[in-house]
Amino acid sequence: MKKLVLLRHGESEWNKENRFTGWTDVDLSAKGHEEAAEAGRLLKEEGFTFDKAYTSYLKRAIHTLNHVLDELDENYIPIEKTWRLNERHYGALQGLNKADTAAKYGDEQVKIWRRSFDVTPPELSPEDERAPKNQKHYARVNAGELPLTESLKTTIDRVVPYYQEIIKPDIENGENVIIAAHGNSLRALVKYLDNMSNDEILELNIPTGVPLVYEFDDNMNVLRHYYLGDQAALEAKMNAVANQGKAK
Amino acid sequence: MKKLVLLRHGESEWNKENRFTGWTDVDLSAKGHEEAAEAGRLLKEEGFTFDKAYTSYLKRAIHTLNHVLDELDENYIPIEKTWRLNERHYGALQGLNKADTAAKYGDEQVKIWRRSFDVTPPELSPEDERAPKNQKHYARVNAGELPLTESLKTTIDRVVPYYQEIIKPDIENGENVIIAAHGNSLRALVKYLDNMSNDEILELNIPTGVPLVYEFDDNMNVLRHYYLGDQAALEAKMNAVANQGKAK
Repeated sequence: MKKLVLLRHGESEWNKENRFTGWTDVDLSAKGHEEAAEAGRLLKEEGFTFDKAYTSYLKRAIHTLNHVLDELDENYIPIEKTWRLNERHYGALQGLNKADTAAKYGDEQVKIWRRSFDVTPPELSPEDERAPKNQKHYARVNAGELPLTESLKTTIDRVVPYYQEIIKPDIENGENVIIAAHGNSLRALVKYLDNMSNDEILELNIPTGVPLVYEFDDNMNVLRHYYLGDQAALEAKMNAVANQGKAK
Repeated sequence: MKKLVLLRHGESEWNKENRFTGWTDVDLSAKGHEEAAEAGRLLKEEGFTFDKAYTSYLKRAIHTLNHVLDELDENYIPIEKTWRLNERHYGALQGLNKADTAAKYGDEQVKIWRRSFDVTPPELSPEDERAPKNQKHYARVNAGELPLTESLKTTIDRVVPYYQEIIKPDIENGENVIIAAHGNSLRALVKYLDNMSNDEILELNIPTGVPLVYEFDDNMNVLRHYYLGDQAALEAKMNAVANQGKAK
């Protein structure tokens, strides 16, 4: 049975402050660290073991993965980091408080940026220090590939090809893979794996710190997917995420 | 100026217990975690930045590296893990208390195993669960390459080619590289870089948690090397290591 585990990072320092995070490299909160370790304990209890891990360039995802590997005692497996698994880039909104953003652009406009499939927030200026090409993380990435803003659609456009070309062959080769990433880069994968419509994926909220397991047949068709852990606690968590705002 | 930083992991749980560790995958002690973070702070203060990191399959080295990358805020750089940077394999002595080993084999024999250049401790049986080919860490390594015991000489024989073939080209390409590893795998590198004799390398003790910086000219000749940090504290640390026993 071929398997893939998706894991959204735990709570970050900025989740608590209600700011648009995107590619801002903020760390996990104390609660986020604990959520990540708990995900690792759950995977261990259920007998999961991994041959390879993928994560983003952002430390909240990398630290989440490190906690999982600590709990599984599998620190030695290869970890591939890629900007293509980063969170959706929020353009000029990055770093702004959500209330301030609403005051500046209006509630309706903010709702459109957060809940639409293909509308992008205002672009960062190429000179802005927040522009990825000006950040040391991306010094070795072709600047022409790096976004100045993203919609969920353009996020999907850079996540799914990476999955198809780089990650999927590992799974086909029988490797047990875990991906530790972000709300919107994981939505991109789920949309692809479950063949969901644009409207369906906008309704989907992935809870933080709960392993989402996909099982495939030998032709890489999805047989089923399920979240690990206590299902009542999980539902409470998913409702909490939904109430935070759907496109976070 | 091309540079390379070598870093020996901080104190491990077994350093405190005076047992032969080798490839046993024990974690850092609380003191070892603190030493590693301090090494990171020192590198940051001195303005170091890295493009690529190498480490072993052993968590005491991996965690040391993670602390450094946390302090430098460079979690996103690629980390290449390899068994070739593991500690010297101590064969059938692994896991034994050093006093018990002396009682079993005699003081003189233990001294020979610890202080000679090319004498190996007794081999592990290939069926022994401690044999690398029976451990999950090494499931993807060609079993014929994995040792059942090692001397400093045979350790050098697997570390130096890895440096020459894999790490050195990165430095030649202008990448800033850090290697987080172990007392004997780093001795192997230092012997090669400084063109030391077999006797000289046996006299050399590398302190834990102190960044050792090499500078090269454009033809990869070593211009100089130096330890970062307070030199008086460093000497005290090196004397402490020397007193622990030279071939640890």
